[in-house]
Amino acid sequence: MNITLKQAEAAVQAAQQKAQELGVKMNIAVVDTGANLTAFARMDGAWLGSLDISIRKAKTARYFDMNTGEIGKLSQPGGSLYNIEHSNGGLITFPGGIPIRNNSNEIIGAIGVSGDTVENDHTVAEAGVQAVK
Amino acid sequence: MNITLKQAEAAVQAAQQKAQELGVKMNIAVVDTGANLTAFARMDGAWLGSLDISIRKAKTARYFDMNTGEIGKLSQPGGSLYNIEHSNGGLITFPGGIPIRNNSNEIIGAIGVSGDTVENDHTVAEAGVQAVK
Amino acid sequence: MNITLKQAEAAVQAAQQKAQELGVKMNIAVVDTGANLTAFARMDGAWLGSLDISIRKAKTARYFDMNTGEIGKLSQPGGSLYNIEHSNGGLITFPGGIPIRNNSNEIIGAIGVSGDTVENDHTVAEAGVQAVK
Amino acid sequence: MNITLKQAEAAVQAAQQKAQELGVKMNIAVVDTGANLTAFARMDGAWLGSLDISIRKAKTARYFDMNTGEIGKLSQPGGSLYNIEHSNGGLITFPGGIPIRNNSNEIIGAIGVSGDTVENDHTVAEAGVQAVK
Repeated sequence: MNITLKQAEAAVQAAQQKAQELGVKMNIAVVDTGANLTAFARMDGAWLGSLDISIRKAKTARYFDMNTGEIGKLSQPGGSLYNIEHSNGGLITFPGGIPIRNNSNEIIGAIGVSGDTVENDHTVAEAGVQAVK
Repeated sequence: MNITLKQAEAAVQAAQQKAQELGVKMNIAVVDTGANLTAFARMDGAWLGSLDISIRKAKTARYFDMNTGEIGKLSQPGGSLYNIEHSNGGLITFPGGIPIRNNSNEIIGAIGVSGDTVENDHTVAEAGVQAVK
Repeated sequence: MNITLKQAEAAVQAAQQKAQELGVKMNIAVVDTGANLTAFARMDGAWLGSLDISIRKAKTARYFDMNTGEIGKLSQPGGSLYNIEHSNGGLITFPGGIPIRNNSNEIIGAIGVSGDTVENDHTVAEAGVQAVK
Repeated sequence: MNITLKQAEAAVQAAQQKAQELGVKMNIAVVDTGANLTAFARMDGAWLGSLDISIRKAKTARYFDMNTGEIGKLSQPGGSLYNIEHSNGGLITFPGGIPIRNNSNEIIGAIGVSGDTVENDHTVAEAGVQAVK
């Protein structure tokens, strides 16, 4: 199973709505099971540097099928995955990337959000995930 | 003036609709005046390799403020811009990328479409451009 | 609003003058709102490796609309943006990059300076910023 | 001998003036004997894609100590340097890049100009070269 464009666009729209509720400007990226970009939106005035980060968060979440923040815990100095960020052309391992699952709990893609604090990035990403149930 | 996300999404939707009319599957990318990605959609089953091409077409169209196919006429062997494709991290210079103008005829971004014949790519891109008037 | 070449050159000249006062040799880069290079100067004998760093500092400051040193505080081990430097083709997050604002306090670009201590880099960058008021 | 920043800035200014006389908008880059950027200016409204091209032209001219257009004659299909553009991270081999010589006819750097026809690019680059005599 792979995420459809319709599902990906629903995730992007739900994330945008959550961002507006929070009063923040986000870059929002959705990738499919192959970690390839499926849908993307950059809200007006969102940080330019977050464009790339949002896509990398989505890819990172799918590369390892876990939240990006979980990987970041393991990639610290002394950690078991120290500096894993050097792989795959550059990972982003702080919160804001989450795998997307379908109703059967299969991973069908991932979402990455960047533009504010990592807590808000994660909250907005989670809103996108919920829209695909 | 810079394209808004609302305008960019309208362009992506209009392009998708045109693609469905033609029975083709497209990758559709919209960039702003800084040539940075603003909105993107990959239709279900569209060529994976066209993902990157659609983004490069949009960027190329904005880099030189002209249709990508025009640049390709000049970059042929013996042409004045031979092998210009090696610049800017890789250009795509066949049809499918078109600058987007506002009602005042100012360039506010560009659209790039890839997924079928270059004629269909261009037709779908043009539908996106028209949606931003 | 986007920085003009005249403004960018004024920033580069003011930065050069400050560097001469301090007796240091700097690379000085100014980017526009799209984070694209607008003006650049490498003072005679300035570190060659600082060429790339000055451009990355300017881009980084515009990517997130804040001083590069602020980002560096958050990207340390254990910090919320740990290893953000892996994004956008490589960020530089120590001091020396500063957004440039116009009289209306709108960000119109950014300056990046590299060639000496980060304190001096920042001081020289600040002189460039002040020249655009 | 290496080009000084003062000489490089004189070249950039002379090129700008020639561009204004011709009514064209150029990106102008000067590199030193090490092919490293020394001075750069992007005129307001100049093609964004020409930023990278101007720098590559300057580097290409210094890499081989000849006008970029000369290399382009040899890199055509069937030519002795076919597709040399793939080297050095991407060369640009159409006109607009010219080595800069001092009064002793030693090469001290190179200039690259991009933003209009290759004829105008070359004319503007030549104005820059002449300013360093």
